[in-house]
Amino acid sequence: MSRSYTESALFRILNPQSVCFMGASNRINSMGTMALLNTLGSGYRGKVYVVHPKDRTVQGFSAYSSIAALPEAPDLLILVVPTVVVPQVLAEAGKRGTRRAVVITAGYNEVDEAGKELQKQIDEVVEEYRIRYLGPNCLGFVNRSHCINTTTIPFDGRSGGIAFASHSGSYVCQALPYAEEMDLGIAEWISLGNEGNLDVVDSLDYFRRHPGVRVVGLYLEGIRRPEAFRKAALRLAASKPVVALYSGGTREGARSAASHTGAVSTPGAVMAGFLRQCGILQAETSLQLLQWLNAFERQPLPKGPRVAILTNSGGPGTSMADQVGKSELVLASFSGEVKERLSKTLPRTGSASNPVDLSFASDLSVYGEKLPRILAQADEVDAIMVYGLAVYASELWKRMGRRAMKEIPLETEEMVTDMLSAQADTMIQALTSSGKPVIAANLDARMDPGVRRVMVQGNIPVYTAPEESVRAMEALWRYTRIRERIEDHRA
Amino acid sequence: MSRSYTESALFRILNPQSVCFMGASNRINSMGTMALLNTLGSGYRGKVYVVHPKDRTVQGFSAYSSIAALPEAPDLLILVVPTVVVPQVLAEAGKRGTRRAVVITAGYNEVDEAGKELQKQIDEVVEEYRIRYLGPNCLGFVNRSHCINTTTIPFDGRSGGIAFASHSGSYVCQALPYAEEMDLGIAEWISLGNEGNLDVVDSLDYFRRHPGVRVVGLYLEGIRRPEAFRKAALRLAASKPVVALYSGGTREGARSAASHTGAVSTPGAVMAGFLRQCGILQAETSLQLLQWLNAFERQPLPKGPRVAILTNSGGPGTSMADQVGKSELVLASFSGEVKERLSKTLPRTGSASNPVDLSFASDLSVYGEKLPRILAQADEVDAIMVYGLAVYASELWKRMGRRAMKEIPLETEEMVTDMLSAQADTMIQALTSSGKPVIAANLDARMDPGVRRVMVQGNIPVYTAPEESVRAMEALWRYTRIRERIEDHRA
Repeated sequence: MSRSYTESALFRILNPQSVCFMGASNRINSMGTMALLNTLGSGYRGKVYVVHPKDRTVQGFSAYSSIAALPEAPDLLILVVPTVVVPQVLAEAGKRGTRRAVVITAGYNEVDEAGKELQKQIDEVVEEYRIRYLGPNCLGFVNRSHCINTTTIPFDGRSGGIAFASHSGSYVCQALPYAEEMDLGIAEWISLGNEGNLDVVDSLDYFRRHPGVRVVGLYLEGIRRPEAFRKAALRLAASKPVVALYSGGTREGARSAASHTGAVSTPGAVMAGFLRQCGILQAETSLQLLQWLNAFERQPLPKGPRVAILTNSGGPGTSMADQVGKSELVLASFSGEVKERLSKTLPRTGSASNPVDLSFASDLSVYGEKLPRILAQADEVDAIMVYGLAVYASELWKRMGRRAMKEIPLETEEMVTDMLSAQADTMIQALTSSGKPVIAANLDARMDPGVRRVMVQGNIPVYTAPEESVRAMEALWRYTRIRERIEDHRA
Repeated sequence: MSRSYTESALFRILNPQSVCFMGASNRINSMGTMALLNTLGSGYRGKVYVVHPKDRTVQGFSAYSSIAALPEAPDLLILVVPTVVVPQVLAEAGKRGTRRAVVITAGYNEVDEAGKELQKQIDEVVEEYRIRYLGPNCLGFVNRSHCINTTTIPFDGRSGGIAFASHSGSYVCQALPYAEEMDLGIAEWISLGNEGNLDVVDSLDYFRRHPGVRVVGLYLEGIRRPEAFRKAALRLAASKPVVALYSGGTREGARSAASHTGAVSTPGAVMAGFLRQCGILQAETSLQLLQWLNAFERQPLPKGPRVAILTNSGGPGTSMADQVGKSELVLASFSGEVKERLSKTLPRTGSASNPVDLSFASDLSVYGEKLPRILAQADEVDAIMVYGLAVYASELWKRMGRRAMKEIPLETEEMVTDMLSAQADTMIQALTSSGKPVIAANLDARMDPGVRRVMVQGNIPVYTAPEESVRAMEALWRYTRIRERIEDHRA
């Protein structure tokens, strides 16, 4: 049972020593070419072979006319060939000695009876040659530590602890630009497609044993092996948080899932209960899924549900407080001592209850250091939410100074720049000094370079909507409870 | 009753011929200075006066020592002076002949008994001099048509039909960078603060009569005049959609609202019912509020609930379908004829049911023109959702080509560029040719310049999360019904 993760079929697919592409061509607008170019662009250091029936050169590579003609059996075969040809190509590869494949080609169980027949042929071939494969109808995978990305979209972002297994290839590849922008740290992302051979249960087992994986995301359209899934999920959730998005819960979603990956779906309410039993957190939207993965990857878990909200803006602070009221979190109730320290630090217009509302202070250290430190040190606070992190670091604010520049002294822009750079690091240090989780929101989260710097340097997730940042913190707290529950159950 | 909107107090505050700032100084990091610089930076063409007790020059302006010393009575006074001084300053301005003010200064009903006492003094002064004012505890306003923005954050984005009245000043100013990024078209945005004199009901009446306003957003922490609000809202909603975010619905939210704007809140369920009665759509998060305003401003209303989903990605398409299943929309059921036209156009791996899933086609005109045109023309479709709008126009995809460039022929990058620019316009034209509303989603909506171009040129709102795009379309449909209901009631 405790095989090393390096012996699993998924590891061997995701860490090939050599890759052979079939379906890459000199047309840039084809799936096979994209897979090839993206693999090259990711810095893959293994051997690359291209098989093409006619062209002798493909994207700069000398192409081989067939698998049989290759100088060695490639470690991994990546296929984007016509649907009917796949069984035969797999058989050729099997004969040559190849044991791993990614079948990007679609048109099987998700389409019609002819497709189902072809899937059976594939089943027979891979059994004969003991081939393990991802797909069909998938986009392969991203493995950052092996510098390989077979999907259609490049990723130049951060390597980290987030693993993701998805019935949808698009969610794997189209989430990459978002991940890059929001500085999500990616470990291994897998497109499962129709799960002809390797499925989500295999992924759960693999991610559990993988030492580089700290949090697991799932996009599900149905679950083919519910009992195995439940066992694997509970074992995984005992040590790593798992967040799932499920799209097959309505009649409309279920029909779409069937024609997408041939999935057999379960009504939403039933799946919600099942995922809860499995120790899995369910996200409501695809964006929430990514946001929660980001929070889990970057922040420690809260030891309790008591949240302090620090804001320089009454409205967003109130929205956060209201969202806490709708959640499993509670607003921390400050002791007399903490209240007094806050009151002494705040201006008269500020509020020392929770949310702690700065309102406005021209002394930047109030918001950038003093208030954060009081909250970080308070025993009655388990977690900190911040609105307006680095709001002074706003490029917009600088722009305002600049455009009135002809009217104002020249040193002013420099004053702003100094102010900007002074504040961010101090605030991050003060906020995180306690080891408590910190999540932030800023309506201009994506645009503002100052805020982006905080995201990158400070490891603090920053969301656009105040309400969504509270939901992410709630997810952290709910996972703390899930893990306790699983541990209690085992004891 | 049918006074022109130009005679209302709000119009006169938002369209001043001259403005006097009290509280601006040579310190850039002060609220008064920000209000001054932002007004100048917005291109305000009226007269600007600065009153400062000591300095003779403020941000390049010759400052006057008092209101009495001004050469004329300014049309509008903008105050950021100490809390206790405001009543006296308003009296001086009243004597000088000024009748309109924005009181940014805070520290009144939202703080303590002393603050409430000061508010009463203000009430007496403004009654004596017939002064109408915004605030206290507000950030003033943005009026695009008059080139004035008194908030702390600049806006260089698009002028348009969105009006917004908010108990929170932060939501007015901090939503501006988001609005700029997402190309929201702004008319007039008003920060109401404590509503000492002008309140949300006044705003509803004003926005109804304002010919430049097409959709109205509200951020509410409580409603001081519920019966007047209901009447004003119903009259407004009969001709313009109104979307509200309410943050005072939980005990936590209500407490925070009280210390923010002195609001008296109502439990969430009660407020939800009340807003429904008023014909107002309630958003769940601050981001949803802005997203819905964007959709209303850019798109026509659907004539019915039947949605067609067009996607090049199975997963996001399924998420959209599932969200339709949870909404008041329905998935359009295609006639045999439409199905046949779709099937003939799609590749074998595609799906001609709803969602229409392209899967993959190297012929760009399939997704970029043929499928959109079939759906736009179909009688059984009231509205179109698109996932992967301009996905071929992705800079990322171009990047992929570029980084493998040393291996591939040099003409490839040009091929991609040609492909990119060819597609977007054609697709927009095909989608919108029917006059049906179109809303799109792209996980990389913000990052991709190609997608951003579609947003700007095509007037099509593009959201990051597929689920949120469906919610926005549902809001359009729900407003269609609200308007019918109000009309029926009147008939």
